[in-house]
Amino acid sequence: MNPRRERNTKTMRSTIPLITLLSDFGVKDPYVAEMKAVILSICPAARIIDISHQIEKFNTHMGAFVLVSAAPYFPVGTVHVAVVDPGVGTKRRPLIVETKRCFYVGPDNGLLMLSAQREGIRHVYNISNPHYMLPTISRTFHGRDIFAPAATHLAKGCVPSEFGLEIHDYLIPRFAKPRMRKGGLLGEVLYIDNFGNVVSNISTKDLEKVGVKESCLLYVKFRKKVSKLKFCPAYGKVPVKAPLTLIGSSNFLEISINQGNASETFKVKIGDPICVSLFSSAR
Amino acid sequence: MNPRRERNTKTMRSTIPLITLLSDFGVKDPYVAEMKAVILSICPAARIIDISHQIEKFNTHMGAFVLVSAAPYFPVGTVHVAVVDPGVGTKRRPLIVETKRCFYVGPDNGLLMLSAQREGIRHVYNISNPHYMLPTISRTFHGRDIFAPAATHLAKGCVPSEFGLEIHDYLIPRFAKPRMRKGGLLGEVLYIDNFGNVVSNISTKDLEKVGVKESCLLYVKFRKKVSKLKFCPAYGKVPVKAPLTLIGSSNFLEISINQGNASETFKVKIGDPICVSLFSSAR
Amino acid sequence: MNPRRERNTKTMRSTIPLITLLSDFGVKDPYVAEMKAVILSICPAARIIDISHQIEKFNTHMGAFVLVSAAPYFPVGTVHVAVVDPGVGTKRRPLIVETKRCFYVGPDNGLLMLSAQREGIRHVYNISNPHYMLPTISRTFHGRDIFAPAATHLAKGCVPSEFGLEIHDYLIPRFAKPRMRKGGLLGEVLYIDNFGNVVSNISTKDLEKVGVKESCLLYVKFRKKVSKLKFCPAYGKVPVKAPLTLIGSSNFLEISINQGNASETFKVKIGDPICVSLFSSAR
Repeated sequence: MNPRRERNTKTMRSTIPLITLLSDFGVKDPYVAEMKAVILSICPAARIIDISHQIEKFNTHMGAFVLVSAAPYFPVGTVHVAVVDPGVGTKRRPLIVETKRCFYVGPDNGLLMLSAQREGIRHVYNISNPHYMLPTISRTFHGRDIFAPAATHLAKGCVPSEFGLEIHDYLIPRFAKPRMRKGGLLGEVLYIDNFGNVVSNISTKDLEKVGVKESCLLYVKFRKKVSKLKFCPAYGKVPVKAPLTLIGSSNFLEISINQGNASETFKVKIGDPICVSLFSSAR
Repeated sequence: MNPRRERNTKTMRSTIPLITLLSDFGVKDPYVAEMKAVILSICPAARIIDISHQIEKFNTHMGAFVLVSAAPYFPVGTVHVAVVDPGVGTKRRPLIVETKRCFYVGPDNGLLMLSAQREGIRHVYNISNPHYMLPTISRTFHGRDIFAPAATHLAKGCVPSEFGLEIHDYLIPRFAKPRMRKGGLLGEVLYIDNFGNVVSNISTKDLEKVGVKESCLLYVKFRKKVSKLKFCPAYGKVPVKAPLTLIGSSNFLEISINQGNASETFKVKIGDPICVSLFSSAR
Repeated sequence: MNPRRERNTKTMRSTIPLITLLSDFGVKDPYVAEMKAVILSICPAARIIDISHQIEKFNTHMGAFVLVSAAPYFPVGTVHVAVVDPGVGTKRRPLIVETKRCFYVGPDNGLLMLSAQREGIRHVYNISNPHYMLPTISRTFHGRDIFAPAATHLAKGCVPSEFGLEIHDYLIPRFAKPRMRKGGLLGEVLYIDNFGNVVSNISTKDLEKVGVKESCLLYVKFRKKVSKLKFCPAYGKVPVKAPLTLIGSSNFLEISINQGNASETFKVKIGDPICVSLFSSAR
């Protein structure tokens, strides 16, 4: 084993093991409590923080968005467990992702990768060592049987490579990074908030690459309809009921209507493609 | 006092006192926070884990099911506080139940007993010592005034017999154990999940006693209607929209429809009786 | 600095820093987790308890009521962070309130003052020291960027005066204290519970001042309609469907209908004025 890497990994541990949980389980049923019980059975001193359990059932876009929004505020070395897992019971692999800041534990379906890529992926491991799982693995609840125990052993200081082989063919979902397309950016809708603001996966950095600056005009295309929208620093910079684009609190491009509902007006839903280009460059 | 018992009890304590909470209080109002405040006022180091506060108002079947599902995953010595308490303010007694694994604190209305019986009941005490209650006892909130302080003192190491007299006439609700009836099992519906799967109180052990094995055919009777259903290891073992029975993740018999809604199809609700017998033995 | 005051403040700290959170953020989005992440980044040992995140959007009456209900049960020295903040991004000031029991951190919009006044306000500070804020302050999320870090440094032992200047012109909202009016009390509706009980801001102490005792008759005026209601110790003291007044679990006067819905019957909503006077004194 590379000693430098091990040292790096070690310095990432906090004194009090910190584990976060994100899922689409809701809080009525016993599932979340079962995961916490497993964590505390392995490590009674672990701190557990809920990020959200109200992700829409099976909606990995929304899960990835909530995770990438919260993760940067947690201490270096935090272990994030995320379970939005339509493929549980199939052959999709259980993963540990080691980034430059922290660890992610969850299914190989892209959920972890928006946040992991932003931090910089170091290594990805396929969890397969039964020593770090519950004795019985159910077909339907890997959150409790595989992910929670793996995360806890990781938080206690186990070296990630002990959990299974390193892999390189993990799934990077389309929404993890917008693509360049004819001088513009082709992204996806990650989230629609309570006000109907449409959050894309296009980051400040992506926009800088194509030369977008404050007060630029942008072409924004949903389905086959193109709109010409101003890129503003705040909602109030356009008249009431006028559409605009801006950078939201998670550093992604949002399409909004000042005091209106953009998702209804543009008939957009989570997962829809969105195409953005500079008005100037499009001439 | 029996010294062996005291030793047993002592070894059940974990170093960090762990208390779980289950209720029908919801999370909008201050009630759950008040219980946690009382716990931390008595024992600042206590760990508190919410099992669920979204139990349907006064639904002790559902509360008992969620408790019995989560409890086995918690460490030995955990103190579980459960408050679904339609009888608060009446003469129903406040209880401490000591089992072979842990402690339950809550009302004497059956809520605790499904889980306590599964672990093996050792002693049941009627909480009456005012020393372990808040100075003022409200008529409506024993969770805060009686159960939370009792649980915390218990988690800190108080011997259960200090809280009040041992009793033997505690309520064992009908749903705590199915009964044998003409070679079959008469149980109750504990829970209906989001997919409409109907969870009974009939356990794997109960089924073994009447000779049920995988791929058996079962007679299942709801109200006056009898259906002949296959006992399967998984939903996918019958055609889409076909009914089946299987063992769910909490080790109880479930009646399901593959990709359908069993509770609607069979018109079943929580608390309904369910009668199960072997098709072969019924010939 | 006054050494006596510093000593007082010091004795108020508990060994384990305890921070509570109350907001109108809901639990679907990453906001609450971001606040917790900021707290644990500054103080990994801090205990965090959620009071409620289901306060109705921007409803400071309801937020103040839930806070004043829960706060008395927490240990001396607890730091309460409350964020129901329609004025975020405007010039409303961020505050630390030091009372005789504990600390409150939140916006200067009255939210904190019902509870702070009940405990006795010692000092109020306008948080302005950037050393105790996140490096970047967003326009929309002072809970994460200002209040959570301030609360954590406070819980760790920073002296409140280090956060900014003491002020005296903080906002005391109308609902923080009912006013005397022609021998009666003019208050406001703070909360309506799931049963339709109408909770006012009129406390037991206020009622004593105007001579109200058990079994008194009260004039209660909502809008322009006056009702003559009995002041009872419990719902069951009047016939089913009859109206009454009583003291609820948070020590405020409630208007109720025995097994009925008072808020619907009297057409009352949160924020409405309520006028109470003694029937005898009104003759």
